[in-house]
Amino acid sequence: MNLDLTASAEALTAALVDIPSVSGTEQHLADAIEERLRSLPHLTLERDGDAVLARTTLGRPTRVVLAGHLDTVPIADNLPSRQHGDRLHGCGSSDMKSGIAVMLRLAAHVPAPSRDVSYLFYDNEEVKADRNGLGRIAGRARDWLEGDLAILLEPTSARVEVGCQGTLRALVLVPGRRAHSARSWLGDNAIHRSSAVLDRLSAYEARRVEIDGIEYREGLNAVRIDGGVAGNVLPDRCTVTIDFRFAPDRTEAQALAHVQEVLAPFECVLTDSAPAAPPGLTAAAVTEFVRAVGEEPVAKYGWTDVARFSQLGIPAVNYGPGNPDLAHTREEYVEIPLISHCERLLRGYLN
Amino acid sequence: MNLDLTASAEALTAALVDIPSVSGTEQHLADAIEERLRSLPHLTLERDGDAVLARTTLGRPTRVVLAGHLDTVPIADNLPSRQHGDRLHGCGSSDMKSGIAVMLRLAAHVPAPSRDVSYLFYDNEEVKADRNGLGRIAGRARDWLEGDLAILLEPTSARVEVGCQGTLRALVLVPGRRAHSARSWLGDNAIHRSSAVLDRLSAYEARRVEIDGIEYREGLNAVRIDGGVAGNVLPDRCTVTIDFRFAPDRTEAQALAHVQEVLAPFECVLTDSAPAAPPGLTAAAVTEFVRAVGEEPVAKYGWTDVARFSQLGIPAVNYGPGNPDLAHTREEYVEIPLISHCERLLRGYLN
Repeated sequence: MNLDLTASAEALTAALVDIPSVSGTEQHLADAIEERLRSLPHLTLERDGDAVLARTTLGRPTRVVLAGHLDTVPIADNLPSRQHGDRLHGCGSSDMKSGIAVMLRLAAHVPAPSRDVSYLFYDNEEVKADRNGLGRIAGRARDWLEGDLAILLEPTSARVEVGCQGTLRALVLVPGRRAHSARSWLGDNAIHRSSAVLDRLSAYEARRVEIDGIEYREGLNAVRIDGGVAGNVLPDRCTVTIDFRFAPDRTEAQALAHVQEVLAPFECVLTDSAPAAPPGLTAAAVTEFVRAVGEEPVAKYGWTDVARFSQLGIPAVNYGPGNPDLAHTREEYVEIPLISHCERLLRGYLN
Repeated sequence: MNLDLTASAEALTAALVDIPSVSGTEQHLADAIEERLRSLPHLTLERDGDAVLARTTLGRPTRVVLAGHLDTVPIADNLPSRQHGDRLHGCGSSDMKSGIAVMLRLAAHVPAPSRDVSYLFYDNEEVKADRNGLGRIAGRARDWLEGDLAILLEPTSARVEVGCQGTLRALVLVPGRRAHSARSWLGDNAIHRSSAVLDRLSAYEARRVEIDGIEYREGLNAVRIDGGVAGNVLPDRCTVTIDFRFAPDRTEAQALAHVQEVLAPFECVLTDSAPAAPPGLTAAAVTEFVRAVGEEPVAKYGWTDVARFSQLGIPAVNYGPGNPDLAHTREEYVEIPLISHCERLLRGYLN
């Protein structure tokens, strides 16, 4: 597979979409990228599993990291790519092979940027956090991530999205006492008792928090409920899975404590969590980039690896051509004009 | 397989338990019973599928039907039968092969009863109502069921249990609007909304109704709840399965209307229902049998085919050696002394 980096950004996006790379199967795409970039003399190449790093080493006073994941969610009868008017459809077109195309075009065509650039392509972002390629690299090749600013080319419809919500999932266990439904007075119905949990979630007033002028909205929701033993049995257990999206002024531990307080005395068992990231608009590198884009930044609703850079003390933003509302949908597409728009803007910023 | 009807009631029960007959697989057991009873000159035999009818035709002024199902719930690592002290353990020991053993012993050893007797063995009682062997026979061989009294040898711990609760199951559909949990204000969480259903079920005050001096207790319960699309999605639907056990003063239609009224405006979709049976203590045949047993009758909590006889205008009661609290459990057993106790009492009643 030869990637043609002289092709237009949209043609390159289509070529990338047509190389399937569902999480865990990124090798073929990583190989193609490594092979293509290794031939460029202004870049130094490194490889770790299915992650590829290509960086300039020009001794510039600042370094920017452009980062993107190679993997996609499972294919949903939406390959190969198809173009309809100004839209390119296909699995990963929005999230985030259009962003990868922009990175590859910049890597090839900006040989002498005014700041050093690290192009970082990584694997397994769309699956459980412990498989995330960026997490692996943070542990074993920390210097790959070094920079004054990280730009993740996640779908943002070419707006600058700053910071991100934290996420927390927990199981709320509601106990009861089993009984035959014909003698229900002998039991204590765990499903009925779970109404106390749902009532609190219904009544919960989620905060809106402004940080550095950016508004973050929280949300506390049941995303699953399971209860039932048999058609004639009062169940002795009902489980409510809750999802808490929290603003960057809470740590993960504070978020869990808050959820436990809201739902006490019911037992909450943490399933997984990921930290929020503050908008970082106090960092000069971020405000400089925001100025270069020339639009008001907005909060990111959803979790991205911006939080991982943030935890490492590296200011980071999301900025990419894909449409965030279409990520993970069968109908996923990218607005073709936004791909070259992003490329042009980033080229100006790097030069 | 030769059934030895000269063996004790407990030995015969053990032999019956050791012939597996999970619903739909009763043929082997039905064959053994048909073969054994066909050799008895005082009985007339008929067969329909896996149902067997053996009856006396002595021209007595009254006829009693002794009825029992041959099938069991699925085996739960509880075969073959095992005896521990006074208890015989094993799948079907309580529900209701100890009752079948009593029927077979009476059929063999009471050749000239004072009332004509129909011994009716049938299939598929432990599964969906439309497979029930008694229902099939009611449709195509109505005369098999004729009598002045029907005694079902279902587990009652040798008490007379009269009438039975009706049962009704329905799905309550709670709609919502789907949204990504990171932007939960765009959605309407169906799980949260279902708290309105659960609150009503929690607050519901079930009636206690006295009919012919027998108290029936109702119960309205959620027996299952399902909701959830994905870990990061507010679900657009939550389904609560409810089970209503109702007293014999309501028809099935009235029971459904009641449930719909309690849960309005949520949509209730009927899944299945079965009528209640009144205690029937106004029928002379029932009071005569109650007197013969010599104990206060109690209400049946649970549904049995008593209701089917009742619908056909035939007074019916439950009376058998098994323990109703153990039916359908892995630990199912029968108290051995109750088997011969029931046999002795019924022998006196028939003679």
